[in-house]
Amino acid sequence: MKQSELEIAREIMSRFPFPENLGIGIGDDAALLRLKKPAVLTADLMIEEVHFDLKYSSFYHLGFKIVSVNVSDIYAMGGDFRGFLFSVGLPQNISDEELRELFDGINEALNYYEGYLLGGDLSKSEKVVLSGFAIGETDKPVLRKGAEPDDIVFITSYTGLSSAGFNFLKNLSQDEKKLVKTVKYFRDFKLYNDIFGVNINELLESHLMPKARKPDKFRHLAKAMIDISDGLLIDLHRLCEENEVGAEIYLQKIPIHPAVLKIAEYLNIEPMKLILSGGEDYELLVISNQDDITALGLIPIGKIVKGRGIYLIDPLKGKIPAKPEGWQHF
Amino acid sequence: MKQSELEIAREIMSRFPFPENLGIGIGDDAALLRLKKPAVLTADLMIEEVHFDLKYSSFYHLGFKIVSVNVSDIYAMGGDFRGFLFSVGLPQNISDEELRELFDGINEALNYYEGYLLGGDLSKSEKVVLSGFAIGETDKPVLRKGAEPDDIVFITSYTGLSSAGFNFLKNLSQDEKKLVKTVKYFRDFKLYNDIFGVNINELLESHLMPKARKPDKFRHLAKAMIDISDGLLIDLHRLCEENEVGAEIYLQKIPIHPAVLKIAEYLNIEPMKLILSGGEDYELLVISNQDDITALGLIPIGKIVKGRGIYLIDPLKGKIPAKPEGWQHF
Repeated sequence: MKQSELEIAREIMSRFPFPENLGIGIGDDAALLRLKKPAVLTADLMIEEVHFDLKYSSFYHLGFKIVSVNVSDIYAMGGDFRGFLFSVGLPQNISDEELRELFDGINEALNYYEGYLLGGDLSKSEKVVLSGFAIGETDKPVLRKGAEPDDIVFITSYTGLSSAGFNFLKNLSQDEKKLVKTVKYFRDFKLYNDIFGVNINELLESHLMPKARKPDKFRHLAKAMIDISDGLLIDLHRLCEENEVGAEIYLQKIPIHPAVLKIAEYLNIEPMKLILSGGEDYELLVISNQDDITALGLIPIGKIVKGRGIYLIDPLKGKIPAKPEGWQHF
Repeated sequence: MKQSELEIAREIMSRFPFPENLGIGIGDDAALLRLKKPAVLTADLMIEEVHFDLKYSSFYHLGFKIVSVNVSDIYAMGGDFRGFLFSVGLPQNISDEELRELFDGINEALNYYEGYLLGGDLSKSEKVVLSGFAIGETDKPVLRKGAEPDDIVFITSYTGLSSAGFNFLKNLSQDEKKLVKTVKYFRDFKLYNDIFGVNINELLESHLMPKARKPDKFRHLAKAMIDISDGLLIDLHRLCEENEVGAEIYLQKIPIHPAVLKIAEYLNIEPMKLILSGGEDYELLVISNQDDITALGLIPIGKIVKGRGIYLIDPLKGKIPAKPEGWQHF
């Protein structure tokens, strides 16, 4: 990162809007944020070659994603997202254009989630380092703790999209990776949809520019909640351990996205591996005893039971103990 | 970072204390923190080979320092420090002992500043990456803005110690660097004090384990404030630009630490370069029109004037325009 880029970054950051009635935005030693409820706080880190590959991830995608992964944790606590701080390490050879794209992606995400950039830090670095910190607020936090036997296990949507997208991207040619890197609006990127006859663009978007699932319509009905960022089974396992309970998941109730099925077939991967243990879906796993939560679009996939351990109920094979595997970041 | 280290890190983090009446600490998707006043928020990043050198910086030093540099920004806003989040990227070859030292240093600093660890993220990384986020609170923020002509410019203590320490450390032999790396309590490390006849240990401590200057005794008397993290002149310049004013600094009023003088002589560096433009002092630059602030230990070094630019007043050479140079992180 050259001096000129530093100036550009400072200039871009200073232009992020901040409404005066909320406090003080970027430009002083620290920001000031007026909240009406207790603060909800989280931090998430993304490092080049560990969490992303610049062959197909653009700086625009990365800017959007670092906001989403942090907002997802605020949402998983039942919080309302308010602000974001962003420390970034960038190589010397980053271009002005890439730097602008990074902040465009952040800006796009902050507009989407209706929060504000509150500060950050910049440094040179050999590898790209994106460190995000989100602040929200709530006076009714929904914890991982709160699940009891006979409660129903819900998920907010399909899972496995991100890891199917990741596996698909990994196997593209260099030229195809370059092409994907240029895409900003995946809903309009129909190339692979036409080839495979299913919505591959949703898989790519789920991996490159995921959107965190907002719980404001159903969080009042939730007894416990966790985001599915590391994989459905491992995150369910964590929630169950916290509550000293087990869970039974009905395999035939788990929704299967047609593009996940298609790509799993194409790449010769067991689709249920993607769906149960693929990470980075940023959907929510919701525990509730209120049936009417299904009217809000949540999908019941099983129930909390006494004892410990996760069991998969297969209509043919019966009850199978599940290994809580998932994305381990290592 | 191996799986076993990940387990150790998780275990250490889960053991950080958090008082229940303040909210919810580490262990859920996000933390919850009850504040009585508006939130003060800041982020600071430290990257290996850019901000520190593992030849003489131990993980204990780094843990302490990443807290201090963040707390310094909270203090510079006149805030009370409350909590810290910490994202870290660590190489595969880090030892269990180094990992424990890192968290010991963070714990030591959090005890010193009376704040709590609220969360964080862990990842492997080629180089060590330390990304800190601090949260505090205040209903009376002291901004960079607020200085007017005829106000007095104060500093809270000597400057130049950290950069003198840095220059001294750089020039040590490999064996000496290794020795310094083992030191936890610099007040007891008298080796170089005995050789040079001055308190070199203060320089080393200022660079390796700086302590942020707490403003609670004088912040009510401050019209404007900034921390001297990048260098006295450049930070004064930033504050003046924010207020569209200039400043005159009386060179003979600037306190000179005897060890800074000694090391500057020993290394053949102009001492005023360290004092005026050496970074990372984590002292405060305070603008006030209250003379009684000196009774609280603050040192008057000049005054705010109409017009723009920083001028150094030398008893012999008269008025010299100063170049606002300092540590640029690049």
